[in-house]
Amino acid sequence: MAEGKTSIKVIRYNEAGYEEFAPSTVDECFKDGFKGVTWINVEGLQDARLIEVIGQRLNLHPLLIEDIRNTELRPKIDEFDDYIFLIFKMLDLEAEEVTEEQVSLVLIDDTIVSFQERPGDVFDLLRERIRNGKGVVRRMGADYLAYALLDATVDEYFTVLEKIGDKIEALEGDLVDDPSPRVLQELHKARREMIALRRGVWPLRGVIDMLDRCGNPVIGEHMSIYFRDIYDHTVQIIDAVETNRDVVSSILDVYLTSVSNRMNEVMKFLTIIGTIFIPLSFIAGLYGMNFRFMPELEQVWGYPFALGMMVFTALAMLYYFRRKKWV
Amino acid sequence: MAEGKTSIKVIRYNEAGYEEFAPSTVDECFKDGFKGVTWINVEGLQDARLIEVIGQRLNLHPLLIEDIRNTELRPKIDEFDDYIFLIFKMLDLEAEEVTEEQVSLVLIDDTIVSFQERPGDVFDLLRERIRNGKGVVRRMGADYLAYALLDATVDEYFTVLEKIGDKIEALEGDLVDDPSPRVLQELHKARREMIALRRGVWPLRGVIDMLDRCGNPVIGEHMSIYFRDIYDHTVQIIDAVETNRDVVSSILDVYLTSVSNRMNEVMKFLTIIGTIFIPLSFIAGLYGMNFRFMPELEQVWGYPFALGMMVFTALAMLYYFRRKKWV
Amino acid sequence: MAEGKTSIKVIRYNEAGYEEFAPSTVDECFKDGFKGVTWINVEGLQDARLIEVIGQRLNLHPLLIEDIRNTELRPKIDEFDDYIFLIFKMLDLEAEEVTEEQVSLVLIDDTIVSFQERPGDVFDLLRERIRNGKGVVRRMGADYLAYALLDATVDEYFTVLEKIGDKIEALEGDLVDDPSPRVLQELHKARREMIALRRGVWPLRGVIDMLDRCGNPVIGEHMSIYFRDIYDHTVQIIDAVETNRDVVSSILDVYLTSVSNRMNEVMKFLTIIGTIFIPLSFIAGLYGMNFRFMPELEQVWGYPFALGMMVFTALAMLYYFRRKKWV
Amino acid sequence: MAEGKTSIKVIRYNEAGYEEFAPSTVDECFKDGFKGVTWINVEGLQDARLIEVIGQRLNLHPLLIEDIRNTELRPKIDEFDDYIFLIFKMLDLEAEEVTEEQVSLVLIDDTIVSFQERPGDVFDLLRERIRNGKGVVRRMGADYLAYALLDATVDEYFTVLEKIGDKIEALEGDLVDDPSPRVLQELHKARREMIALRRGVWPLRGVIDMLDRCGNPVIGEHMSIYFRDIYDHTVQIIDAVETNRDVVSSILDVYLTSVSNRMNEVMKFLTIIGTIFIPLSFIAGLYGMNFRFMPELEQVWGYPFALGMMVFTALAMLYYFRRKKWV
Amino acid sequence: MAEGKTSIKVIRYNEAGYEEFAPSTVDECFKDGFKGVTWINVEGLQDARLIEVIGQRLNLHPLLIEDIRNTELRPKIDEFDDYIFLIFKMLDLEAEEVTEEQVSLVLIDDTIVSFQERPGDVFDLLRERIRNGKGVVRRMGADYLAYALLDATVDEYFTVLEKIGDKIEALEGDLVDDPSPRVLQELHKARREMIALRRGVWPLRGVIDMLDRCGNPVIGEHMSIYFRDIYDHTVQIIDAVETNRDVVSSILDVYLTSVSNRMNEVMKFLTIIGTIFIPLSFIAGLYGMNFRFMPELEQVWGYPFALGMMVFTALAMLYYFRRKKWV
Repeated sequence: MAEGKTSIKVIRYNEAGYEEFAPSTVDECFKDGFKGVTWINVEGLQDARLIEVIGQRLNLHPLLIEDIRNTELRPKIDEFDDYIFLIFKMLDLEAEEVTEEQVSLVLIDDTIVSFQERPGDVFDLLRERIRNGKGVVRRMGADYLAYALLDATVDEYFTVLEKIGDKIEALEGDLVDDPSPRVLQELHKARREMIALRRGVWPLRGVIDMLDRCGNPVIGEHMSIYFRDIYDHTVQIIDAVETNRDVVSSILDVYLTSVSNRMNEVMKFLTIIGTIFIPLSFIAGLYGMNFRFMPELEQVWGYPFALGMMVFTALAMLYYFRRKKWV
Repeated sequence: MAEGKTSIKVIRYNEAGYEEFAPSTVDECFKDGFKGVTWINVEGLQDARLIEVIGQRLNLHPLLIEDIRNTELRPKIDEFDDYIFLIFKMLDLEAEEVTEEQVSLVLIDDTIVSFQERPGDVFDLLRERIRNGKGVVRRMGADYLAYALLDATVDEYFTVLEKIGDKIEALEGDLVDDPSPRVLQELHKARREMIALRRGVWPLRGVIDMLDRCGNPVIGEHMSIYFRDIYDHTVQIIDAVETNRDVVSSILDVYLTSVSNRMNEVMKFLTIIGTIFIPLSFIAGLYGMNFRFMPELEQVWGYPFALGMMVFTALAMLYYFRRKKWV
Repeated sequence: MAEGKTSIKVIRYNEAGYEEFAPSTVDECFKDGFKGVTWINVEGLQDARLIEVIGQRLNLHPLLIEDIRNTELRPKIDEFDDYIFLIFKMLDLEAEEVTEEQVSLVLIDDTIVSFQERPGDVFDLLRERIRNGKGVVRRMGADYLAYALLDATVDEYFTVLEKIGDKIEALEGDLVDDPSPRVLQELHKARREMIALRRGVWPLRGVIDMLDRCGNPVIGEHMSIYFRDIYDHTVQIIDAVETNRDVVSSILDVYLTSVSNRMNEVMKFLTIIGTIFIPLSFIAGLYGMNFRFMPELEQVWGYPFALGMMVFTALAMLYYFRRKKWV
Repeated sequence: MAEGKTSIKVIRYNEAGYEEFAPSTVDECFKDGFKGVTWINVEGLQDARLIEVIGQRLNLHPLLIEDIRNTELRPKIDEFDDYIFLIFKMLDLEAEEVTEEQVSLVLIDDTIVSFQERPGDVFDLLRERIRNGKGVVRRMGADYLAYALLDATVDEYFTVLEKIGDKIEALEGDLVDDPSPRVLQELHKARREMIALRRGVWPLRGVIDMLDRCGNPVIGEHMSIYFRDIYDHTVQIIDAVETNRDVVSSILDVYLTSVSNRMNEVMKFLTIIGTIFIPLSFIAGLYGMNFRFMPELEQVWGYPFALGMMVFTALAMLYYFRRKKWV
Repeated sequence: MAEGKTSIKVIRYNEAGYEEFAPSTVDECFKDGFKGVTWINVEGLQDARLIEVIGQRLNLHPLLIEDIRNTELRPKIDEFDDYIFLIFKMLDLEAEEVTEEQVSLVLIDDTIVSFQERPGDVFDLLRERIRNGKGVVRRMGADYLAYALLDATVDEYFTVLEKIGDKIEALEGDLVDDPSPRVLQELHKARREMIALRRGVWPLRGVIDMLDRCGNPVIGEHMSIYFRDIYDHTVQIIDAVETNRDVVSSILDVYLTSVSNRMNEVMKFLTIIGTIFIPLSFIAGLYGMNFRFMPELEQVWGYPFALGMMVFTALAMLYYFRRKKWV
């Protein structure tokens, strides 16, 4: 459960005008006879009583009120005769850090009530468009607003995905320069982040598909193409996640093979050096023995002969290694 | 088959009142004309005769009576015209140890008969709620009680899952500090536990979905949203299990790569040390030979020259290694 | 094709009585007007002519007669207007050895004709129950007999599965004590056996599901719960096989990692020993050189100095290794 | 595209008689009013004009005529109102070499036109049966001929599969005797061949299933059981391919583990030998130093003492290694 | 977003004639009352205004106009009452480099409007066929033109696939000659390219299937067999991609095993050489000790005895190694 206090912000608009205020009571949020869309945004889930009051005002099922406060749920959609209840995950990218936040959405007549865990969201651009009357949003109903909220959320997914992609690319470079376990750990972490992202998008895809097909009267038929559009975006994200996972796997494979190859090269070189000198040292040791009667030691040609034997041995071994393609 | 003896406990309640007793005969469990919910809880499956009597009193199919005593079954649901038969697994976390227990449930009119392998269960909170009249349970029918029992069971799954998650995290730390095969074995054990958990939840998910869709008259239509809710919880557990499996795989991967990298570093260092000294030792051996005619040995500059040659060889090799980026 | 000769055994029973005999002609098997179940069991498939005669007497399709003698088929079910043809695999566990045998079953009115590859089967307990009139079998029709035959077959699968499980457990111990390739090979063999078992059960599961759903008049509606029951058993076997495969994989993983870890430990230790002595040997070699003018050699403190240098070098290296956590 | 020239062979038969000839024109192939089955077999696809003429005579869609000559297609079935067009792969095993050949089949009324890439096929047995009037083929229609052609093709698959299985078994032996990369390459090749085989059978399975279910008037209802039969065979082949792939994987696993284990054993033994002698050599080197003042050198007990120290060191190390279970 | 400027080319044709021109205004593209097919090809997506004008002229949904300019989309099909909107990827192979380009296609009555990212495409052969009146294209409608465009695109996929296949084959050779990390990286890159290709074809397969089944009036029923044909081609490409991935995996496996085997061989040989000489050097060191009282040193047979001991030790070790099959 997130910290902080619970506050409500209401945006009420239609093609003619626009109004934005922070109500002091729940009743203020609703205005009978208003022709237009009302968006009630609840920030913070601490005030259980307040959420319950809103829920009862909307006639929500008690389990849904529980769901709003249980921030561990998967994206889902619950349909009722006169309203639709949605849960999805909003990713927010602030200062290099990705935060996940659960958003619950109630779509009921011309009203949308959204519940967020914390203040701060990815909807500011949308609010700006409502304020300025840019785009079609002011001309459309609450179902379009629901679409716009989901669209903004999914767009942020793309941003996060791109960031993870960039991180993976950077890590690929790091791995070449400094193949430390830390980089490996980061790479695995990136893979896990992508899996988490996928786990958020995958059910969202189902939710949006259901929104498109549900035939609920709170969603107009002309919205189908819009939901189709977000649906395509979620599929695109899932694709991109899969591609990224493949890339990470490839990087790891190439890295492990390279490390192992390089290691093998080093060990082989060193072992060859060692192997060449071991017989030479043996010859030197041989003539370092202190037997009284070692005829070679007394000869003038003894020393050159030993040196020659060493050179010959070394060359013979090198020749053998080269013929075997070991050096 | 669990040990101990078989005992029956009956809880009978409606909105007005509440009654709890241990009947001495099977007939005492049932009371004609009672308006409310009867929950007959049979603990222990040793008394085959008693279970058969209860089964015949409820008019259960003989195969189901066998199923109740066969504790190796998968979660399943069998629907009949006038009753529903459920089997599911109850996990109980007591003193660090997870015990699995099979629960069979018969839902028939306003009566629920539950069969447990052992006394002791995860339903005490629910009993408390019935006794105190807290929550909606006293106002609802036997179908809600079935939901409440399943809900308590699935909630315990979350607890167990969390415990395994904690264990994995602890093992991750251990693996860094003390990468012994024991920790690896524990990690694999945790993975197997999660697979076992998944194997219990996966069919339960199907069972609950079926409960929701079956359209059997013993389950009211208003229960759909409740079963949907548990269904979502089971999906959440399956997701969490998948995530945990990924985490375990990642830990193992990073661990193995780290161990192998560290090992390689050590071996490379040691081999390089060896390789540098082997030619030096050879030079020393060379001038340790006992040939009578070795001109260098007689010279004043012989010893410094040999030392110089050694230093030069060592530096040349170090330079070569560094240029190759081996040190 | 199995060896031996083909023989026929007939069991004819109803609630009132029971009769068992070995007919000398095919016609003897059938008795018009008999009220009860006739089970004709053909052991051995060598006598192609005999099987053809039986097939023609039952009006079987020629392809089915071919199928009966082709013992390499997968479990399958072929439905016709007035009879059902089944093929499944019977495992028999005798003296530590698992033998697989194909059983073909024709269910036609009140008659079951079963064809086995060899004499000897897992149905003796069932025969005993028919003879003694124990259980419900004498009161039920031929469809129940078909169920009872399948049930006995599937029960034997559990026995085999348990045996493989025991073997795997024993191999896990062996692997720790004696990690020889033979144990690995046995472990892989056990895995293959389980895959083979799965390959037998998987289609059987479909066959039984089809039996349950086919709606063929030769199978009474009351049989549904019985077939459901075997179906659940087959699913349980498939689950157990999956679990066992996971166990084998885990064992292999832990084993390989342990072996590799232990090997690495050994190599590291030995290499460290080597690395410490190599510089010491070099120092010894240095002062083993025979140059006439080596001032140290002449000094009284020369030998203690060399020894001290060696001790210092060894300690310095040990200190370095310990700081690097290599020892 | 295969080489050679295109030739046509016609077999015309009914229950009464049989006729076989090589027509000189396309028109000769067809005979109005003939009561019986006509099988027109076109060998070689070089003569594009001829194939086009036949196609136009049969009123085939232009795309199908293209398909006949494009020998890279997957097995497929195209249904039309009055004819069925099939493509499948014929494997032919001649002199240790497997050749793949594409066969196109047009089934139209009582006529079958088959197109092969090359002369020579697996249908000779079938032709013999037509000539001799053995089996039911002469009594059945063109749909049965289509079945017989497919059946002969699938039977050849079994032969090829067996051959690959034998090769794998032989390679398993080779791998033990001579674990060279060549054997590994062959093993991987066998695995690829099996994958290729599977890729041919998998869509064929779908084709045959479609043939069974299509309900096209050119195929009689009594054919269902025959197509079911081939369908079962294709499933059997797919099963066998899967089993073989598992076997290959197992062989590779066991092999790699064995090689690695054996290598490790060797390296450990050699390193232990080395490690025991390194300190001994150091002791020898120590007393090979030429310091003037080394008291031990002057003592009578010096040499035995040094030898004793060596023996003690060696034994102590052996004891240590044995306690650690390294030797 | 690709660079350059946006240009329009119009081809208008029917069975009688053919006309090709670059219009200066959007209105020029359309000609009321023309009996025939109009293909409007827009090259370059920079001019957002122009694309919007075209979209509005065709009455396209605003989201589709956005889609045309968003070149990161997956292949998809959007169906409307009176038009079909397609997006697919065109691969173009120019000078060894594969470029991917998104093509959007609007099929509306007798008009096709195609949008490409860049000038230059794979449709030149098709244009030639329209100009010359070769093939059936001039006699068919706009639906056939859509098919022809998709067909040309898919044909180019085959070309690209072949190129990647060739590259893999070349890399297989390189890997044997020069097993450098670069080749590994290239191999992994080829695998990624194939995955990318698959990711383009997989949804295209669904798109074409949908085109075939959609029943939209803008597509004639006679087109079914044509779309079926491209569908088969996409499946073929997916198959080929899978095969190629298997090949790459096999190459990598064989390569890694070979490298590791070869490395092991080298290390074993070198270690054996070392192990044989280490005891010999020890013997030499032994008799290099300077003890005054070493009886062997004084004997005439001392030196030959030491040499003999060395030869014996070497032979004994070789014999032992050979018996263990290490050499």
